[in-house]
Parts: sequence; structure tokens; C-alpha cells
Amino acid sequence: MKETKIILTEKEMPRKWYNIMADMPNRPAPPLHPGTHKPVGPDDLSPIFPMSLIEQEVSTERWIDIPEEVLEIYSLWRPSPLYRARRLEKALKTPAKIYYKHEGLNPTGSHKPNTAVPQAYYNRQAGIRRIATETGAGQWGSAMCFSGAFFGLDVTVYMVKVSYEQKPYRRIAMETWGGKVYASPSNHTNAGRQALAADSENPGSLGLAISEAVEDAATHGDTNYALGSVLNHVCMHQTIIGLEAQEQFKKAGDYPDVILAACGGGSNLAGVSFPFLRDKINGKDLRVVAVEPSSCPTLTKGEFRYDFGDTAQMTPLMMMYTLGHNFIPPGDHAGGLRYHADSPIICQLYKDGLIDAVSYPQTAVFDAALMFARSEGIIPAPESSHAIKGAIDEALKAREEGKEKTIFFNLSGPGIFDLAAYDEYHAGRMKDAEFDADKMKKALAELPVI
Amino acid sequence: MKETKIILTEKEMPRKWYNIMADMPNRPAPPLHPGTHKPVGPDDLSPIFPMSLIEQEVSTERWIDIPEEVLEIYSLWRPSPLYRARRLEKALKTPAKIYYKHEGLNPTGSHKPNTAVPQAYYNRQAGIRRIATETGAGQWGSAMCFSGAFFGLDVTVYMVKVSYEQKPYRRIAMETWGGKVYASPSNHTNAGRQALAADSENPGSLGLAISEAVEDAATHGDTNYALGSVLNHVCMHQTIIGLEAQEQFKKAGDYPDVILAACGGGSNLAGVSFPFLRDKINGKDLRVVAVEPSSCPTLTKGEFRYDFGDTAQMTPLMMMYTLGHNFIPPGDHAGGLRYHADSPIICQLYKDGLIDAVSYPQTAVFDAALMFARSEGIIPAPESSHAIKGAIDEALKAREEGKEKTIFFNLSGPGIFDLAAYDEYHAGRMKDAEFDADKMKKALAELPVI
Repeated sequence: MKETKIILTEKEMPRKWYNIMADMPNRPAPPLHPGTHKPVGPDDLSPIFPMSLIEQEVSTERWIDIPEEVLEIYSLWRPSPLYRARRLEKALKTPAKIYYKHEGLNPTGSHKPNTAVPQAYYNRQAGIRRIATETGAGQWGSAMCFSGAFFGLDVTVYMVKVSYEQKPYRRIAMETWGGKVYASPSNHTNAGRQALAADSENPGSLGLAISEAVEDAATHGDTNYALGSVLNHVCMHQTIIGLEAQEQFKKAGDYPDVILAACGGGSNLAGVSFPFLRDKINGKDLRVVAVEPSSCPTLTKGEFRYDFGDTAQMTPLMMMYTLGHNFIPPGDHAGGLRYHADSPIICQLYKDGLIDAVSYPQTAVFDAALMFARSEGIIPAPESSHAIKGAIDEALKAREEGKEKTIFFNLSGPGIFDLAAYDEYHAGRMKDAEFDADKMKKALAELPVI
Repeated sequence: MKETKIILTEKEMPRKWYNIMADMPNRPAPPLHPGTHKPVGPDDLSPIFPMSLIEQEVSTERWIDIPEEVLEIYSLWRPSPLYRARRLEKALKTPAKIYYKHEGLNPTGSHKPNTAVPQAYYNRQAGIRRIATETGAGQWGSAMCFSGAFFGLDVTVYMVKVSYEQKPYRRIAMETWGGKVYASPSNHTNAGRQALAADSENPGSLGLAISEAVEDAATHGDTNYALGSVLNHVCMHQTIIGLEAQEQFKKAGDYPDVILAACGGGSNLAGVSFPFLRDKINGKDLRVVAVEPSSCPTLTKGEFRYDFGDTAQMTPLMMMYTLGHNFIPPGDHAGGLRYHADSPIICQLYKDGLIDAVSYPQTAVFDAALMFARSEGIIPAPESSHAIKGAIDEALKAREEGKEKTIFFNLSGPGIFDLAAYDEYHAGRMKDAEFDADKMKKALAELPVI
């Protein structure tokens, strides 16, 4: 019997995260204060982040120790298996070998706890009793509530109201882990009350939910804020994925020719690829591909310039490929990829040609998801299915070219909470939203010139 | 760092199922034809089951080879990890060691594929193109559709209408794996049409759904029927759980003093405990405990006698602890445990004192589930939570007695599809249904005297 999964024991789990800042040919331009446009310092961030995470955010050390308490919680689901997708290969009649890392085997069903757990840990170490955060589709909020439970942290989640109403199961899961979930806009913050005063039927947005969570953290002494993507320390925590995969490829006696991951804020792509990108920076022949929805094509269509992380312009300005923070992408089902920009590190690496990017329309992504579900058995999340679509296209190209090639992608999670989207797909009701370039130009024209 | 999970490699996965029929002090009384009350033979079963499964059903061989093709699919999620529940132990301040086997890591989220995969395989080997089956809560139907996809089998599922309407996500998952799902009663069978003619608003029942699936299989030449619990071959396929656990306990240098599992039809309890019961039969000191809902207390309150497996009296009569096939248990959330009887093997072992049984009311079970979710991080299925409640009570007893004890239970699946029940629990709306002994007496009085 041929091996399906390459596994590691807990003893073989990496003990350090990898910080790509140590090896980047060009580091990202500094984040700027949203008001003064001067580089932000630790003091600007300390009201809402613990100093240990601020230090990680600006660190250029190559390796950062993973605390023992974090490793113990990681071990509830880590190391995660590296799968050889033999059934998918067979279905595609490809000479390529396809591997995927399965990050959906933890109780929250996404890669997000890889950073939620250390963020909960460092906040607790700093004496923080409560975390305020936002969530859209609910993956990040779930990860934060799950992680808070281990450290006795109270977690309050501002959940975009339209998701709060459409995805009650995500809310109930967060409550089961002990979290407090408010539909955003809420009447618990000034930002929320103002939005409700202007429009009592406001369906909410991620930008507004961020504003509420940041305000909550800034106005409560025992409370900090936590973010699930984009930031340097978040990307670094996720490198446990790629570090494990490197050990697993060694065991398999193989090495990827191409690595693919869905890219929303960027932490998923960062996690799986950064340890391998170190090899590429050191001369290894390797392609890393960010896969985006064509309805929100940040890297493939955006502009490289300073922009805010949120619509309310409360976060620092960051140097990113952006569609403009006022660009509202169409309501695709891959909610985790509907972000107007990307992690500054990812953007710099893309700028420097170390990362490629492709984009796909939604129905093509669901075609790939269905093929994966019926060959490998796992119903993938819409976000993860972008990487699957990219991997399938690479495998078909290998077939055309008659080339043996090693393809590796990250399966960030299952699609159990996204079955309504599959229902729409099965019924033939799913549509591809067009990207509106004029809307992007308008949103970019509103950005400050720096 | 102390180890959290004891894992096995694919190479260490058992190659044979264990058949407890070889070692039982007393084998179950033979199943009887529903019409003639004479023992059924292979010919009675061959219209709806392949001969290889009928042979397994009556086999007394101790070990049955697992086909290579089945092992290859098992390896998509097996061997499953054995967890040491250190966080739960700590929360309980118990000197006991608590272990659990996590059977919820496959894409269908329950232990059911352990038997659905071989059932799909043997049917395909016999030239069958299509399977008809029923499902209540949806776990078994999901497992069958998932398994059918690997062998190119069409799967038609008659899903109890009230579940079909309440659990659309289960339906959509089945369709994503390629299954065809009908709300039962349907207009696709005589049984369904008759039920609808009598009452067009009939909400359906498991008994009626079985009747529809059996009729579908019996009236289509290319179609067989498949059952997810109760039968001997189903229990045997599940022994992969206990066989793996035995290897894992060897690695841990430990052995359980008590094994607990939720018991509905019995395949979950059979799977985890039968290999260990062989040790008990051979003299080992060990307790095996079936955990039931007190609203459907088959072993703890039922009578040991011949009864039908379904309400429509189409299945053979089997010697079981039963509440009577017309006993309708209250609408508890552990849908998988709402069965009027149990596997004949489990019942015989209980009769012979090799298995104990306890029962718990629903809210106590959810109290245990919440404690587990907040200590171990996994939100458990209501069915599995019965075993958790039993394990917690054993651990608390160990604390009172100051005894170190090794407790082992099976976590048959996560509660992701059951979050509506958690919502009811969080809101304080969950009620405990009383067991109605008079209803049972009435149902038992209607049974044929054999």
C-alpha cells in the first residue's frame, strides 16, 4: 500500500517560527501613523497590543522561539499531515505529484488558531484579561474564542451583522468556547452607535467591525485587540505550516516545484511558503503562487502604494498592493479573500518577483472544489478551493507538457460552514462577479498621496 | 513537553477486522424471518446485500482481512489519534488518566465511514451500481455518499423529512459527494406514496425511511441496501477503532480500566470495545460501559426478546434489548441514539454481564460537552457527549476514591452539525424528556410472542 499521508510526531514539531524579515532582499517600507504620516513606533501600538507582539512585529531575527505553552496547545492538532493527493492525480491523469497540507483538522476548521493561540498566550502573559476582535465569515473569531478558552481570557467578537444573521452556527461555536459575540454595528461602541444612528438597518462591514473592536480595546484598560492576518507577527506564527511541510518533504524524499495558496490578507500564503522562500532567496528553483478571486484581485490588478488597513482609516498606513480601502468587492463566497489589500511582506515579495499571482472566477473555483471533494473526499472551504483550482491547472499543464512536477498547496480548511454556497453551486444559481476597474480607480483616487 | 496524542503510522494500521463471534461465551440467537418466524438464511438476504457481506454477517472466524482498496481509503484519515485528555483531567482535578480516540477527523465527521467504505467496496465488487439507504440525523447518509464517490457507486438516501428540513447542510454535503437525497416519505416508493396518501404532512420516521430504502433496493436489480449499525458485519468493520487503540495503549505503556462509548444501534461501542472485550473474556480485569440517553434507555430499561429492527416490520426479528419497535423516543438532540433496540451482539454481551450500561438525561450530557469543549477545545457531537459524561463521572469517582485509574472513551464525532442544540442549551431552553415506561409497556405488548 502506498503512503497517503506523511506525518510527524509531536517530538518532530518545529520549536521556532521563521521570520522572513531576516532574509528579504528588500524589507517592507515602514507603516505610517494614520494622522501624521510619520513612521509608527511601539508607543503608538502599545495601547492595543502587548509589547512581546510589537517586538515580533518589528523583529528581524530569523528564528523566534515558540513558547512551551503554545506548543502544548498546538499539539492538540499539530503537526498536521501532508497528504499526497493520489486520487486527484488519477482523476486528472497527470504525471505531476500533488501534495497538500491539511490545516482544517483543528476544532475551528481553519489555519487561524496557529496565530490565535500565541496571541492569546502573549496577551495573558502581559496581564491582559480580555480580547476584543472582529470577524467576518467567522473563522478568525472562532479561532480567537477557542484560543481564549485555554488561557482564561474573555473574548468579545464584533461579527459583521450580515454574517451574524447568515451564519448562526459560527456564532454558536464561538459562544460554546466561551466567547461573547455582538452583531456589528452594535450599541457597545461609539463607532457602532454612530453607524446605527445614521442607518438602523446598517448590515455592517469588516472595516466597521475593526473600528468597534479597536475602540473597545483602546477604551478598556484590561483589554487588547487582536488581528488574524496582514501583520508581520501573524504571518510569522503561520510559518509552523511550512516548517512542518519542509520536514515532511524530506521524509517523502521530494521537494515542491510550485507552492500555491489562497491569498486574502496573506497569512495563509505566508505560513505555507515563507520557509521555502528562504530556500528560493538562497538560489533554489521554485515558484510560489498567490491565488486570488478575480472579483478581488489585489496583487494581480491593484496598485503598490500606501493605504489604510481598514475602511475607517484608523490603522496605520501600510505599503501594499491595494484596490483602495473604499473598494467594496462583490459578495463572493470566499469571505476570507475579500480584503482590499495584502500583508506588506507579501506585497514586497511580489513586487520583488519572489511571488507570482493568479486569479480565478468563483464558479471555476467551485468546479475544482467539487472535483476535489469527489476524489479526495474532503469538501474544501471556498477560500482553500482557490489553491485547489491553481494546483489543478498546474497539474493539467504538466500533463500537456508531459512533465513530472511536484505541486504543493495549502488546504486551509473544510467547507462545512460554507455549504449554502455549495447548494447555490449545485442548483446552478452561482454567478461570477465582474471586477469593476472603474470602482478601483475611484477608490485609489481617494488615497492620500505619500 | 508531555505527549498529547499517541499516533500510529499508516504502516501500523491493522490489516484485519476482529470478529467477536469467535470468542463470545454465548452467540446471539439467530435472526428470524419477519413472516415465517424461521431462522433466515443467506437467500433471504441476497436480494438486498452482496454475498460477501452476508458471509461476514454469519461468520465465526476471528479475523477477517481488510481489502487493500479499503485500507487505501481508510488511510485518508486513519489511523486516528488516541488523545490523552490532560486539560480535562486538570479541570476535573482527578488522579485518573483520561484517553479518547478521535473518530471525528474524517470529512464526514463521524465513525460511520469505517463501515460505509467496506460496504461500498463489497457491493461494487459484486457488480452493484447503486445503493439505497436511509438516514436520520445525516451521519450515516453522509458516510455512504462519501464512500460511494470512491467506487463510482450512485447513492440514494431517504432522509427523514423533519431532518431534511432542519439539517439542510447535511443534505448539501451528501449532494456534494454525488448523492441523491429524497425527503422521506417520498413519492419514489409505494411505502412513501401510501404514507403521503394517508397524511400529506407526514414528517417521516427512521422506520419509514428504512422501508423506502429497502423497497427501492428490492425493486431495482442494480441496487442494494446498506445499514449503518446493528448488524454483525457493521460492528466488525468498526473494530478498526479498538484494534488501533490497543496498539496505541501499548505505545503509551498503559491499558484501560474502563472503556465507555455512546450506544445507539451499538456499532460505535462495538468498534471501540470488542478487541478489548476479547482480553476480558480471556480473564483481563476491565469494565466496558454503554452510555445511553435516559429518554431512550434500551439496555437499562428494555426487555430482552425478539423484535423487528424497523417500525414497518420488514427486517428480520432479532434477539435484542428493546423498548418495542413502536416506541417513539422523545425528540432528543442525540438523533443517533434514538433507536428502540441495539445490536444483537451487544445485547447478548450485556445479558452475559460482559458489558455494563448507564443512562443520562440530556442537559447533564450537554454540561459535560461544554466542559470538554472549553478544556480540550473540541465541540463534541451530542451522541459522543454521552461517553464524555460517563468518563467525567468515572474520573470524579476516582477523585473521591483517591484512585489512579485509566479511563478510555470514544469520541465518535464533532458537533458542528448540531450547533442548534448548543444554542438551545446556552439559552437555557433545553429540557430533559422523561422516559415513559407505560409507552414502552404498550409497545412491548404489541410484539409477537416467540
